[in-house]
Amino acid sequence: MSDRYLAFANSSAGQRLVKTLGLPAPLPLERWRGGRTRPVDGALLLGGEGALGQAVVPFAHKLTDALYAAHEGQHALPRWTAEHGPKLKALVFDASGLTRFEQLIELRDFFQPTFKGLANCPRVVLLGRAPESLKDPIAASVQRSLEGFSRSLGKEIRRGGVQLIYVGKGAEDQLEGALRFFLSPKSAYVSGQVVRLERCGEQVTDWTRPLAGKKALVTGASRGIGAAIAETLARDGAEVVLLDVPAVKDALDALSARLGGRSVALDICAEDAPAQLVAALADGVDIVVHNAGITRDKTLAKMSEGFWNSVIDVNLKAPQLLTQALLDAGTLQDNGRVVLIASISGIAGNLGQSNYATSKAGVIGLAQALAPALGKRGISINAVAPGFIETQMTAAIPFTLREAGRRMNSMGQGGLPQDVAEAVAWFAQPGSGALSGQVLRVCGQSLLGA
Amino acid sequence: MSDRYLAFANSSAGQRLVKTLGLPAPLPLERWRGGRTRPVDGALLLGGEGALGQAVVPFAHKLTDALYAAHEGQHALPRWTAEHGPKLKALVFDASGLTRFEQLIELRDFFQPTFKGLANCPRVVLLGRAPESLKDPIAASVQRSLEGFSRSLGKEIRRGGVQLIYVGKGAEDQLEGALRFFLSPKSAYVSGQVVRLERCGEQVTDWTRPLAGKKALVTGASRGIGAAIAETLARDGAEVVLLDVPAVKDALDALSARLGGRSVALDICAEDAPAQLVAALADGVDIVVHNAGITRDKTLAKMSEGFWNSVIDVNLKAPQLLTQALLDAGTLQDNGRVVLIASISGIAGNLGQSNYATSKAGVIGLAQALAPALGKRGISINAVAPGFIETQMTAAIPFTLREAGRRMNSMGQGGLPQDVAEAVAWFAQPGSGALSGQVLRVCGQSLLGA
Repeated sequence: MSDRYLAFANSSAGQRLVKTLGLPAPLPLERWRGGRTRPVDGALLLGGEGALGQAVVPFAHKLTDALYAAHEGQHALPRWTAEHGPKLKALVFDASGLTRFEQLIELRDFFQPTFKGLANCPRVVLLGRAPESLKDPIAASVQRSLEGFSRSLGKEIRRGGVQLIYVGKGAEDQLEGALRFFLSPKSAYVSGQVVRLERCGEQVTDWTRPLAGKKALVTGASRGIGAAIAETLARDGAEVVLLDVPAVKDALDALSARLGGRSVALDICAEDAPAQLVAALADGVDIVVHNAGITRDKTLAKMSEGFWNSVIDVNLKAPQLLTQALLDAGTLQDNGRVVLIASISGIAGNLGQSNYATSKAGVIGLAQALAPALGKRGISINAVAPGFIETQMTAAIPFTLREAGRRMNSMGQGGLPQDVAEAVAWFAQPGSGALSGQVLRVCGQSLLGA
Repeated sequence: MSDRYLAFANSSAGQRLVKTLGLPAPLPLERWRGGRTRPVDGALLLGGEGALGQAVVPFAHKLTDALYAAHEGQHALPRWTAEHGPKLKALVFDASGLTRFEQLIELRDFFQPTFKGLANCPRVVLLGRAPESLKDPIAASVQRSLEGFSRSLGKEIRRGGVQLIYVGKGAEDQLEGALRFFLSPKSAYVSGQVVRLERCGEQVTDWTRPLAGKKALVTGASRGIGAAIAETLARDGAEVVLLDVPAVKDALDALSARLGGRSVALDICAEDAPAQLVAALADGVDIVVHNAGITRDKTLAKMSEGFWNSVIDVNLKAPQLLTQALLDAGTLQDNGRVVLIASISGIAGNLGQSNYATSKAGVIGLAQALAPALGKRGISINAVAPGFIETQMTAAIPFTLREAGRRMNSMGQGGLPQDVAEAVAWFAQPGSGALSGQVLRVCGQSLLGA
């Protein structure tokens, strides 16, 4: 699908359209492939003065064997310059030391020279302290200003990804998991995002199989994004349980057989679905991914009661009921991970999707509302909000709208189911208990937002 | 300016372009004109069951003399139907009673019939309870889901505005000011916004001159948005002090003479600016509007140190220094109002505006960081984030970019300086101490966001 769009956009008609709109012609994104070991396939430049850069140094050599610093002697690393260094695949800038407005120029001073030496699809991470954690209002304002900077940088770098991670005191040891995701092609279609890491007990022990020993449930797993999530969790070592409606049981069984998992054919909106699910997961579950979702698009003026209710029931009510049942029955284990699939529509609203946007905003609300109580058991709950992802669902969108949806992001193209799956797999990791109640967009830095 | 665009967009070439992009041809927005007394020039329909609708009833007759309810006998108001009622100019739906997913259908049930009876530029407000204030996670999720609904509705209603107001317990008496703004053409270019009202001691006493007896400082007041703010604050009864750089002293003096105010010619980045301002406002100030701002656009790769620093200094550092000086000197009075001008760029980031976006995100951070301490003195601090506003600044943008910027919102057109000014004037009111640390976008529900 994505390839077909790239072919179109690079055709003469497509190029003309793209140019008329002032949008860049998209180029294929680099993605994670099996067999890779190092997250960063090239040089990593570390800059900025502060405690967070210091915290990166001890594990930085596990990310890549080509480490550089912005200044001579910093972190005992060789100094990088555009003239003498290799092309840069990854940049990490520790902005946590910036507490005065005058210091913001350091952002320009660090990044400007790198533009002459960026490799394809460079990955960039800014590290900071959450503004709300700071007493000095100027320091808080400076740290908050990083959001505007990183999102602008994302729009300038385009095919690369630029994220801002606010690291809580004591959460420095959770940086490795976050950087392994954000500095690798696993986050190929993620840009312009802001996440907050907090202290968390657990750690990944084996980075080649971070989910080893974990059992993961994925709903809506027979195809599209759900199937990609199941594959990715299995790749990372999880034992997968695939759930979908009985009508697609054959596809579900075939995939679960291939992944060495188990399938559960079940309508999640059935009255006895919670009880059936608890029974099917009698030996517990560690990771629950509520991926099943439907659209029933109509403008509100023409929205039937059936369209409205079915979307609310499948996308919002069922995940809540199932999660509660798994909690009440003790099925969801301590340090469990719940991942909900939201949508850009739930953030920005969408014409013709008032039911869908309501359900997906509610999903975000569910993650935010449940996070504090679940945190007491070490369980995290987060939402992944996909933008335009190439699936059978989006293939059904009329041509003009589809092309617009695909193009309206920093990368000028739609994402792949794998992109959503990688984000889910990161949230599912043991160390990702450092995040809860948060929303991560996988949208190529879509222009759309709120 | 706006008229020129409307003429273009409705020309045959313009229509073709607009149609190609799948965007609506814009129609002129209704705006507030002097001499009006009632906020709602037409019928208002009140719906939903809950305490907030009840709180609206006592003052609803001051908004309009044509009040209707969605159900027979509700609030002792006549029932509206599309067949028998007049066209609706304003809708208020109290969603605070929605605590279960099944109740969300009430949103559809209330709004669907109204589509057959909407007047031009209808204004819609949903009332709810802030999700974070609710203990029940389902109720919190339902209230959070209203964001997705209201933003979708805004995109379907287009020329109207749809907002969501989360009303804190005890803040019901602050609804009148919010509804006078959001249900009137004063908020013509505001849509898709979410604000939170909290308890606040002060009230407006005279709605024809809500700022009577207040002294207001406006920076960058000689032209454009700043001049519109000064005019609007003066219209609302404030004594205005207009500040701008010495180079435009003539225009500044002419405007302040017309408004019966005073002018201060001062470079806000001068070292002695804080001291000079404190001296110029020796008898105190109640309202401070930090409107002065500059752009110096370049991609980061080509951004000079001068471009970077001047934007940070004017847009971010000066407002902070001046605010602090006014606080330290006791110049800013108790129950004062500080309004900062941010930007959509500060929220979404922007290509070629890394300096500007950083400064404007920092401004948002400043409002958030200062709000708690200032609140102890009844002082509020908020940010208004304009989208594409027709000014000399935006007139200088190259044609294609400018047209795209204008079109990419629910209303298919740019806003006017007056639209920003009305939002500032609302934040400046005595009752608006109910909001602090918040950001209100004046952007026609721009597609752009984060």
